[in-house]
Amino acid sequence: MEVLIIGAGGMARGIGLRLVRGGHQVRIAHREPDKAADLAEALGANASGEALDSAAGAEVIVLALPYEGSREIAEVWADQLAGKIVIDISNPVDYETFDALITPPGKSASDEIAEAAPGARVVKAFNTTFASRLATTGRLDVFIAGDDGDARKTVAGLCTDADLRPIDVGGLKHAATLEAMQLLHMKVQGEIEGNWATALAFAP
Amino acid sequence: MEVLIIGAGGMARGIGLRLVRGGHQVRIAHREPDKAADLAEALGANASGEALDSAAGAEVIVLALPYEGSREIAEVWADQLAGKIVIDISNPVDYETFDALITPPGKSASDEIAEAAPGARVVKAFNTTFASRLATTGRLDVFIAGDDGDARKTVAGLCTDADLRPIDVGGLKHAATLEAMQLLHMKVQGEIEGNWATALAFAP
Repeated sequence: MEVLIIGAGGMARGIGLRLVRGGHQVRIAHREPDKAADLAEALGANASGEALDSAAGAEVIVLALPYEGSREIAEVWADQLAGKIVIDISNPVDYETFDALITPPGKSASDEIAEAAPGARVVKAFNTTFASRLATTGRLDVFIAGDDGDARKTVAGLCTDADLRPIDVGGLKHAATLEAMQLLHMKVQGEIEGNWATALAFAP
Repeated sequence: MEVLIIGAGGMARGIGLRLVRGGHQVRIAHREPDKAADLAEALGANASGEALDSAAGAEVIVLALPYEGSREIAEVWADQLAGKIVIDISNPVDYETFDALITPPGKSASDEIAEAAPGARVVKAFNTTFASRLATTGRLDVFIAGDDGDARKTVAGLCTDADLRPIDVGGLKHAATLEAMQLLHMKVQGEIEGNWATALAFAP
């Protein structure tokens, strides 16, 4: 499967590594093409870098940007995202306090992205897995929410290929829960063992 | 410490076992005193059973009842719970669909219990640990939320004594997140390994 990852930071790297290992073709897109090329080179032969230009060809698009950037892409690219699976990994966290979300009450970042790009098949995923942990090996839980059941299944398949455990929690309304839980996960990082490398799990 | 557990079901048993192992004195209270006595006997020498009669003497009270029952106790016992640490373990889940909570929008079960017993020092805890898993050994994460910092610390201490890992997530407003996350945890039980014995965790 051809996956376009928008962004060239830690999360783009972590998800890119997993997808390439899972046998998929990864395109990295960034406003600065050099950054995209650098990350693609690090990911290996099944990855390529490009300017942030077009989603054409990609079956799945990962918005590996901060919340505001993801929402902006959804707005600007609304037409070309129509019909495509768009993975929103964002966490709309108030990074000053780590005690609240910055989305309007009752709305998740995923809700906002889905509103901005109404034709996109938006799936929340990867918002509870830190970049450094994704970049290692080991099976992590990836929580998946979205209103399009086939899109959720496709994302679950990508996870399974990448040695991750997909946990399909149902409709996009549950993205709010995943974002709120990840806020708590981030908030306590200073007090638990893990150094931003723990993962939310339904543990045995 | 003397802990009064209201209820004699699986969660009362699991929490009671942990507390007794941690060296604490456990009182089990139930409308049917025989049920309380039976559970107390199973818990051993540091446990006793009694009728559901009075919270006098107990420093900590655990409402180990379904959501509606916990709210009712909070209402009826509001006066005698004043100043005491009241642990709310409930999950206000719609058990028909496993896809929604039955609390009013924007309100958690803990919020409702705190409103019903305004003098109580309400702490959310143990709502993400299934009874069968608590009843085994092994260190589980226990997520703790409450507006009284000292009360949260006391509950965290009880957890540590009981070989559980307390994770203090802050104010009672975060109880809503813990309840929503546990809904998802329950919802997917049929699809993941675990048989109602998994535990929500910030895993390494």
